[in-house]
Parts: sequence; C-alpha cells; structure tokens
Amino acid sequence: MRIAVLQANAVPGQVDTNVARIAGAARRAAEGGAHLLVTPELFTTGYVPALVPRTLLQTSPEAIVRRLADVASSCGIALVASAPDRGPDGELFIAAHLFDRAGARLATYRKTHLYGPDEAAVFTQGRGELPIAALHGFRIGLLICYDIEFPEAVRGVALAGADLVCAPTALPEPFGVVARTLPPARALESQVFIAYANHCGQEGDTVLCGQSIIAAPDGSVLAAAGAAGEDLLFADLDPELQRASRADNRYLSERRPDLYAAWERPARAG
Amino acid sequence: MRIAVLQANAVPGQVDTNVARIAGAARRAAEGGAHLLVTPELFTTGYVPALVPRTLLQTSPEAIVRRLADVASSCGIALVASAPDRGPDGELFIAAHLFDRAGARLATYRKTHLYGPDEAAVFTQGRGELPIAALHGFRIGLLICYDIEFPEAVRGVALAGADLVCAPTALPEPFGVVARTLPPARALESQVFIAYANHCGQEGDTVLCGQSIIAAPDGSVLAAAGAAGEDLLFADLDPELQRASRADNRYLSERRPDLYAAWERPARAG
Repeated sequence: MRIAVLQANAVPGQVDTNVARIAGAARRAAEGGAHLLVTPELFTTGYVPALVPRTLLQTSPEAIVRRLADVASSCGIALVASAPDRGPDGELFIAAHLFDRAGARLATYRKTHLYGPDEAAVFTQGRGELPIAALHGFRIGLLICYDIEFPEAVRGVALAGADLVCAPTALPEPFGVVARTLPPARALESQVFIAYANHCGQEGDTVLCGQSIIAAPDGSVLAAAGAAGEDLLFADLDPELQRASRADNRYLSERRPDLYAAWERPARAG
Repeated sequence: MRIAVLQANAVPGQVDTNVARIAGAARRAAEGGAHLLVTPELFTTGYVPALVPRTLLQTSPEAIVRRLADVASSCGIALVASAPDRGPDGELFIAAHLFDRAGARLATYRKTHLYGPDEAAVFTQGRGELPIAALHGFRIGLLICYDIEFPEAVRGVALAGADLVCAPTALPEPFGVVARTLPPARALESQVFIAYANHCGQEGDTVLCGQSIIAAPDGSVLAAAGAAGEDLLFADLDPELQRASRADNRYLSERRPDLYAAWERPARAG
C-alpha cells in the first residue's frame, strides 16, 4: 500500500478553505499513486480549540463528515481526517475519521489524551475505544497527537491488531523533539507503521512545528518533512518488511502484562 | 551528579580480566569527576550465556559481588555492574547491582525480559521487583538490556520514583537502531535520565554493537559512543533540567491507567 501524509497550514474557523486544502492534497496524493491520505489534527476547523464551538455554529460535525466523504469519493482515495465530533449529551470530542475511496466511513476514533487546558476547556476525553479497519490488506488504527506520546496508546492499538497507526497531529513549537524521537520509537517497539501528520506555520497564537513523519516497524524513517513549509510525503508500506521485523523483534509476544499491571500500583498509591 | 558509562569488550569466562577492566574504567571515571560508573550487562563474566555455568564453577556470584564492592570502595566511585545472581532454589538470574562509593550494595535488580533462547536456556526471568536507591540526590533505578526495549519497564521504574535509570546492556548487531532510537524515547516519555552501557567487539559468536548512550528527560542525547571501539562517556545530570522537563511534559501524571488495563484484554483473549 502506498500512503501519503499531508503537512499543511489550516485557517482557523474557515472550514471551506481547509476542506478545499484537504481535497487538493487528496488529488495530488491520488495522482501520486497513494491509496490513503493522512491529514493533521482538527485540520478541518483549524487547530484553535477555543474557536471550535463558534465554528460549529456555522456548520456541524455531521456536515464536515459528509464533505470529507465527498473528498474521498471524488478523488478516489481513502482518507484519514480529523474534526470535532459530538457525543450523545452534546459534549465535543476531537475525532479522527477513516473513509475508504468510495467515501464510506470505516472508523471514528475519539482522542483519549487531551493536551493542555485549551483542549480540556472545549473537549471531552474519549472513552478508549480503539477501532480497527481493514484497507488494502492492512489493519488500520487511529490515534491523535498527544495520544501517540504515550507508548501505552500505540501498544493498545497494536494489541488490537493494527499494522498501521494513523495519527493526525497538532504539535507546536518548541516540541519538535517529540516528532523526531517518538514516532520511530513507537513504530519499532510496537511493530507497526506510523503515519504522523502535523500542521506547519501559525494558527491563532500557536506555531506548529511540522516534521511530519512516516516510520516503519524496523525503526526506519520512510519519509520526513521539515519544520516549516507544506509538504506531501509518500511511502510504500511493505507487508514483508513488517513480517520480517516481527520475526526479529518479538516485543508484542514477549511482554509481561501481569508485571505491568503490578507496576501501576506505586502510582495509584502515590 | 556526573556519571560515566563504560563501553568495552569483555573476555568470556575471564572474570579476573573483566573485573580489572571495570576497575580501570572506575579509576578513570573517578579521575574525571564522575560520581557513578555504569558498565555493560554480564560484563564480569563476558556476554556468552552458555559459558556462565562453567564460569561459576571457578567463582561464585557472591565472590563477584565482593570484588565489585572492592572496585567501588578502592576507586571511591559508585558503580552499576552486572553479574549472574543465584536464587534460593539454585536458579540463575541476570542481575545488575548498584554499589555506593564505600562499596555498600544499595540495590540488586534481576532482569525481567530475557532475550532469546540462549539466555532462556541458562537464566530464569526476574519476578519484577524494581528497587530504587538514592545517591547524590538522585533516585536510581535499574533495568537490563532487553527490558529497556519495553516502554512498560521504564515506565514502571519511573512510576516507582526513579530519576535515573541505569541499563547494563549487551545489544548485538544488527540491532543498532535499538540503541539509537529507544533510549532517548524512553527518557523523554518517562521523564528520566537513561544511562545505557553496551559492549563492543566480539564475545563468543556474538558481535556487540556499541552505541552506548546517555539521554535526558527532554529527549536530548547528552553523550553517545560509536558502534565499534571502547569508550568512556561522561555527562552531568542536571536536576533543574529534569524539573523543567517534567513541567513541560506531564506524561507521568496524564496517563490513563484504567484504559491501559482495558487495552490489555485483546492480547489476552487472542
């Protein structure tokens, strides 16, 4: 499977503009032979949590989903895109949706580790469902930004059966070390491909730090973007590389989960 | 606190030679102002698991511990060193001992993730005790080689209160990507200093891959050795850097352990 990762700048509050940018990238990704495009966190609304409720007065999460489905089907490419999602009690989540190339929504994931007071003021933490969907022979899991900084989250998705973890992200300066350090480690330690798609440039008061990356289960970096400037990364995910790496690195089968449960205790007591 | 990390070649079965090499490094580390020297996995016996039982016909784990304590006290430096350790039923563990500069043994850790059939043929897996000992204002935890490739193990030591994790290692070719990728990620994600001491050169049929490394809680690399050749790394561990990093990166307090416990279930059912 060939995948593409979009690194780009969104305009806070301008859903039309942002969806059009996703559509432009989807066309270029499809022309480049990609079967799947992964785009950044809350790219549809722009990454300014405080503006999301106002943006949703002009459109709805359901309308955004329909437009993303149209992008996938009109461009003929599967798509991971992130948008606000509303729960049954009106609460908002940060979601990532996976659409197939016909525009069918295969999975929706709600971010389980919110980052900082700005996100917590607007959004509710997801309750931990880790959907997995099959596409082109790969089982695809979803996480969002801060989630992936926790090894437990990628581990959970890998234990749920994922081969590829797609992670829409909004990583700001000065945390570029996170993008350079953690996705390759997650890929190696949990034996999955990782597609990590970040914003670049300024949105509201936040300067996003780019450095989007595609990492492989052997810890290699298949593609990486710079800190500034838009980019469209491509990589071919080789199932044979993953099979060989899982034969060399038996991390998923040689874990000691009973010990890990016991090791949680000091924190809970403390 | 200034620490030193020894990267060196051991001679399988030659405990006298190997302890003398540790003593030489301890003298140089102390002369360089280090308060603690960290040395590689099973350096005392050499890293050839199959030879360890025969080596222990000529000496005992207790005798090796006494000689390591003598090194620490005669050189006036705290020491982390690894040796076989015998359990109450005669079973062997791979251990790492921490001695203070007076030669008092402060902690002994038994490796909980054995690597491969050669280790499993000789050694028993540790039962998961994670001792922590205080030294120069740092709380020091111990792990060994393959342990550190599991994020859960470093997390466990960090949750138990460690500021610095010392990891005697015997990482072979072609797994250098592990040494380059995982220690900085572990340091960043669990907000600890990591001192990772590997062998270099050939021992028995195994070629060890060097690349010993000292990593900081902000993900930075304080010192790193090459793949071939002996080295003695030095780094000053700044508690203020750790405090600032823990203010920036709240990974230890923003975990969701109830979800992580739930995410173990697919693996156990599968």
